[in-house]
Formats: sequence, C-alpha cells, structure tokens
Amino acid sequence: MPTISSKGLHMPASPIRKLVPYAEAAKKKGIKVIHLNIGQPDIKTPKIALDAVKNSNLDVLAYSRTEGSEEYREKISGYYAQHGIKVTPNQIIVTTGGSEALSFTMGAILDHDDEIIIPEPFYANYNGFAEANGVKVVPIASSIESNFSLPPIPEFEKKITSRTKAILICNPGNPTGYLYTHDEILQLVELVKKHDLFLVADEVYREFAYDDNRHFSVLQEPDMEPYAIMVDSVSKRYSMCGARIGCVVSRNDMVMDAVLKFAQARLSPPTLAQIASEAALDTPQAYFDEVKQEYVSRRDLLVSELGKIEGIKIARPSGAFYCVAELPIVDADHFAQWLLEHFEIDGETVMVAPAGGFYATPGLGKNQIRIAYVLEKGALQRAVHILAEGLKHYVALGD
Amino acid sequence: MPTISSKGLHMPASPIRKLVPYAEAAKKKGIKVIHLNIGQPDIKTPKIALDAVKNSNLDVLAYSRTEGSEEYREKISGYYAQHGIKVTPNQIIVTTGGSEALSFTMGAILDHDDEIIIPEPFYANYNGFAEANGVKVVPIASSIESNFSLPPIPEFEKKITSRTKAILICNPGNPTGYLYTHDEILQLVELVKKHDLFLVADEVYREFAYDDNRHFSVLQEPDMEPYAIMVDSVSKRYSMCGARIGCVVSRNDMVMDAVLKFAQARLSPPTLAQIASEAALDTPQAYFDEVKQEYVSRRDLLVSELGKIEGIKIARPSGAFYCVAELPIVDADHFAQWLLEHFEIDGETVMVAPAGGFYATPGLGKNQIRIAYVLEKGALQRAVHILAEGLKHYVALGD
Repeated sequence: MPTISSKGLHMPASPIRKLVPYAEAAKKKGIKVIHLNIGQPDIKTPKIALDAVKNSNLDVLAYSRTEGSEEYREKISGYYAQHGIKVTPNQIIVTTGGSEALSFTMGAILDHDDEIIIPEPFYANYNGFAEANGVKVVPIASSIESNFSLPPIPEFEKKITSRTKAILICNPGNPTGYLYTHDEILQLVELVKKHDLFLVADEVYREFAYDDNRHFSVLQEPDMEPYAIMVDSVSKRYSMCGARIGCVVSRNDMVMDAVLKFAQARLSPPTLAQIASEAALDTPQAYFDEVKQEYVSRRDLLVSELGKIEGIKIARPSGAFYCVAELPIVDADHFAQWLLEHFEIDGETVMVAPAGGFYATPGLGKNQIRIAYVLEKGALQRAVHILAEGLKHYVALGD
Repeated sequence: MPTISSKGLHMPASPIRKLVPYAEAAKKKGIKVIHLNIGQPDIKTPKIALDAVKNSNLDVLAYSRTEGSEEYREKISGYYAQHGIKVTPNQIIVTTGGSEALSFTMGAILDHDDEIIIPEPFYANYNGFAEANGVKVVPIASSIESNFSLPPIPEFEKKITSRTKAILICNPGNPTGYLYTHDEILQLVELVKKHDLFLVADEVYREFAYDDNRHFSVLQEPDMEPYAIMVDSVSKRYSMCGARIGCVVSRNDMVMDAVLKFAQARLSPPTLAQIASEAALDTPQAYFDEVKQEYVSRRDLLVSELGKIEGIKIARPSGAFYCVAELPIVDADHFAQWLLEHFEIDGETVMVAPAGGFYATPGLGKNQIRIAYVLEKGALQRAVHILAEGLKHYVALGD
C-alpha cells in the first residue's frame, strides 16, 4: 500500500478540528451552540457587492486574468491610495483569498528548510502554509501581559540564522487583536533592512482599528521597496469570507514576478467573486463606520463581561475582532470539549477556540482561549455568561 | 536586498507567456487575434448554473465547509454513480478548481525531492504544481506517431526509483487529446499495484470522449482503494472555467485525511461558485449531447483542414478539445511569435501554443504546436487557413 507524504502526515489540523464532533453531538442533543470559535462575522455583506453578481450578464463563466482584471486592480490601487499606500495596479496580484496570497508569498521567497520568524500566538494556518511549502516557522513569544505587543527586537536577532528569509506579522492580529504602533513598525523596518529580510504583513483587518489607534502599513514606510510584502483580503473588510478573494501587494518586481508564476499555474482567481469584490470597493463609508462602531461596542461588552470572571487574564484588543483570554485552568482543549459535552444554560452552550493551536512552541497557550466577537451583543452576552458559569462548575470539578 | 527563493526563480512561466506581448501588440495595430492557444471554450455555461447564483438570497457571503457542503458532495457522488464510479460524499473533497486538487494531491503524497512519473507531453501546469511542492517530475515520452498513446510499461519501470511515489495521467489528455483505452488503464493499474505507487488521474475531460470511445476511470477498477486518486473540475464539463471548483476523489482514507488538512489551511472553496456548480449538476443530458456533437464536428473540421497542410503531422484526438500538430519547421516558439508579428489575412491573425512547454524533457516538441478547438467552426476554419498560409510564407522565408 503506498504511503502518504510525511508533509501530509504533519500538516497541522485546524485547532478546533477535534472539537467539531462534540459540537455536532451537542447539536444532535438539541443544544444550541454559540460559536465564539470562528472569525465568520454575522455582519451583512454590502448589498452593492451581492447585487453586482446578480446583475452580471455572463453567458460564459470564463477564466479571468491570472493576476486579476485590469479594472479591478486599478480600483484596488485607488482604495490603497485612500489609505496612504501608493501602489500601481502592476504591484497587485489578485489571489484566491488571503490564504493563497500567503501561500504564494511563502513559495516565492522561501525555499525548503528556509526559516520565517513569526511572533506567537499567530493565525494557526500560517503553520499549514509553512508545512505545505516545506518552510520552518521560528516563533517568538509575545505576552498576554502586554496585550501581545511586539517582542523586543533583540529576541528577533537571537533567532536570525543564515536560513532566515522573512519576518511575518499579522496587523491587527488574529488571534491577539493587537494593533502594532508606528514605533513597533519602525523597529521591524529597521530590523529587516539591517538583516536583509522580507517583512511580510498580513493586513486583512486594516479597517478594524479601534479607539484612537491608527493602522500603519508596512507599505507606508520609505525605502521599503525591496523588503515589504503585504497580504490582503476582502473577507473581513466586507464580511464576504466566502468570496475567497485577496491579493499580494509589493513593489519588489522579483517577488511579484515569482508570485505571478505561482498564480499562472492555477490559472485565475474565481470570476464571480471578483465581480462582487470589485463592486464592494464602492461600499459607502457609512457601512464601515457602522460596522466599526458595532465591533467596538461588542468588544467593550466582551471585555467588561469577561473581566468579571475570577482568575481571568485578558489581552485588551485594539483591533480585529478577537480576544485572547487566559483562564484559571490547566487545559483549555479539555475545558472547551467539556463545555460542549457537559454544560448548557437554557439549552445553549458555547464553543471557543483553545489557543494552543495558535502557538508554535509546544505547551504555550494551553490555558488560553480565543474568542471571536463576531456575534450580535445579545448572543455574545449569553455566551460569556455560559462561559463564566461553565468555568465555575469546571473549576469546582477540580479541572 | 533580500532575494526570492530558487523555487520562485524556477517556477515555470506559462508556455504562452512570452507570446502575450506580441498578441497585445497585434491587437493594438487593429489586428484581430484568433485564440487557438487556450482551453477557454466559447460554449455557453448552463443557464441553470448561472441562474442559481442570481436567485441565491445570501445576506452574508460566508465561508462554506472546508470540504464542500454536504449537499453538494452528495450530489457529486450521485453524478459519479451515473458514470459507474461508486464513491461516498466523504470520499470527495471540493477544491478551488482542478488546480488546487492537483496541488493538494501532490502535497499529500509527495515529499520534497520525491518523484512523480508523467507521460509527456502533459498539461504544463503540472510542472508548476510540482515545483511549488518541491517535487521532481520524471517524464516518459509518448509519441505523436501513435497519437500519444500510453508509452510501453517497461519504459515506466526503467524510471521507477525508491523516490517514485506516483504516476500521473491526464485522461483524456491535455494537450494530446488522447483517450486511454481500457487495456492501457489496466496496464497502469497492474503497474502501480506491483510497485506500490499512487495512480493519480486528471479526468476533467471525462465527458469529452468521441466516436465510439468510452472513458475509463481509475476509480472503476477493482481493488484500487489504496492506489487511485482522481482529480476533477467543473471547468470544462459545464464551460465554467471561471468558477474555480474542482475536487479530489479517493477511497484511501489516509490520502483524504491529508488532503483535508491542506484544505483546512485555506478555509473553504469559493461559495458563489459552489452554488453554480451544485446547480450545474442538474444540467439536462441534451446540453452535453449538443456540446459533444459540436466538438466532434470542430475536431473533424480541424483535422481535415490541418491534413491539407504540406509536411504536417497530426495526432488525431479521441477526446478533450486539443490537437497537437508537428510542423515542418524548427522552432514553434519563433513561428508562433512571427504569426503574431508579421502575418495576417483580412485583418486577422492566429495565436497557437508552442508545444515545447508541454514537455519536461528539454528540446522535445520544439516543432509542435497545440491547438485548442474551442471556437465556432467559422473562426476555426479561418484560423486554420491563416495558419496554413502563414506556414507557407514562413517556410519560404527559410524558417
């Protein structure tokens, strides 16, 4: 019998994969599961985007251009200009989601066994893209005590080897909700210039910057042409995760040429979703203002309600829509499963993402969970109540 | 300045990439370019598929299930049953096009520097997926003299090493148009069983089997559970290349589990395109009958017209919608470029795909071209006329 690859064997499963059967079992028992475990917002997709698809008059659903249509990239370039990022349409390659953008970027800049440094906890699928590309992730721990701010630069320098090719950040962060300050971005800029590394920034949550914080893109800094690569997506911005449209943006021609070749191999990004994504760029500012206000009030509710739980530690989120909390328990995987199996209030229980899967260093984050505040406040409040009561019972059981 | 990966450097560019600027220059001069170079059919997408998207009432364009929705995989399984292929929905993982299905399959079964044997000429992007996955393609030449039938099994056995993990076929073939006989499939089945290899079959052109020929799937043979992996796509079947929906099908649980992990990393295939693809499964048989009849008559026209060209050699296609022709010239790349730059009849010229890019062995296929007969017969006839006249002039110029 032929055997699968060791890559196939070691590809990390989704951090919540083991929990799914328990969620399904709960549902079968008639229990409603409130999902705090996934970044699928309940926010409506702009009507203008969905209508564009409905009103399209295609006879043949044909391939689009490999790099995305001229018109769409032109409009994306206009969007970036509004955000203080000056790039031409040729410095943009449209991809099938931010996922493909990340995967192509890794392939374009990292060879087998090359290393990429990523502050942890980080978006779990970075591990998957790295494994698929034969690339080694070198994590640097950030701390819940500082809301997961940038680890000190000397920590990065300790980890740089001859195989290090890039540093990857997610800004604002999933799962941390941390928004890097301008000073932190400048520190990274200096670091990559000093060591001749790529700085890859996953900026898909750009608009989700709260309070008086501003988002700083790696493409806004001067003299970053050779170093900066930005990954983007329409998924969260327009609440259209199912579109699967993103892009890679860089002023480094060699990088863009390599990414284009990866893109050519898969022919083109999805055509219908590009129609929706292009139209979405005309979404009025009022939509974003409203969405942002909604997320801020959800965050405030979440942080205040979580704060009442005894023994909890919370990283206060300044962006995105995630919050990492440290619980007075030993094993968040076990707790999350227990909630689904054994706890409910008025026929409802809650599913959270154990945070261990967001760390590359074994053992870290075992007592942390990630909460996505993507649900309306009523459900969010009930969910936190269930979590708090469940935790009390669980702790009383002796962990 | 940081450097890109050697992988990024060596990713093969599309075989027609160098020609694109010449095609664009011709268009700028007001010349109409008839495209015989790409497998983008002019056949209409079934209305039922496009209407399903128009009639969908989504508020939130959300992620779908990673492996494709239960309902859709259930329906695909029904479609396969009609084609004599018995698989359960759990033996199907929906992907973003056949491209992603191929890439995930390679990742799941081949490690860095492992080898995959592929009869050449083959679909050029196999090279891209192999390079991206760090996998070595081992080609075995098939011959235009036999219409690119399966090379003798001893040729395969000569190439099998301890790193060989799989054999990949495209059936019917792009670019060859060759449909493997049942006997050829049985030879491959015996071979992979003997050497414990995976047999990966790209069967995206399944319906395009002409004359009295029948298509034989690797999943129809008995006792192939551990060995057979099939890659499929809606692109050609329903003329919806831009949907980007395909699937991996296998009864090998280990393979499916590994593919699922690759799929989880990119979250989900595009949602809108899945709505279209699911509806497309209800396309009435009359659509396929009509399409097949149209392709057969195009093929007949093409083969008969090409046959009149002096010094040409043609592989008669029994499936798909491609035809490889050998021309009495030295360098098909140069000829293809020359046509775009220097030749036109009544304001029209023609773009063909030089076949060298479909071979992995350097130097092979240099005097061959691939023609996609995806255009209506009027255009096809004009295109072949331009090709024939152009060839005369080109040959007279002394190549």
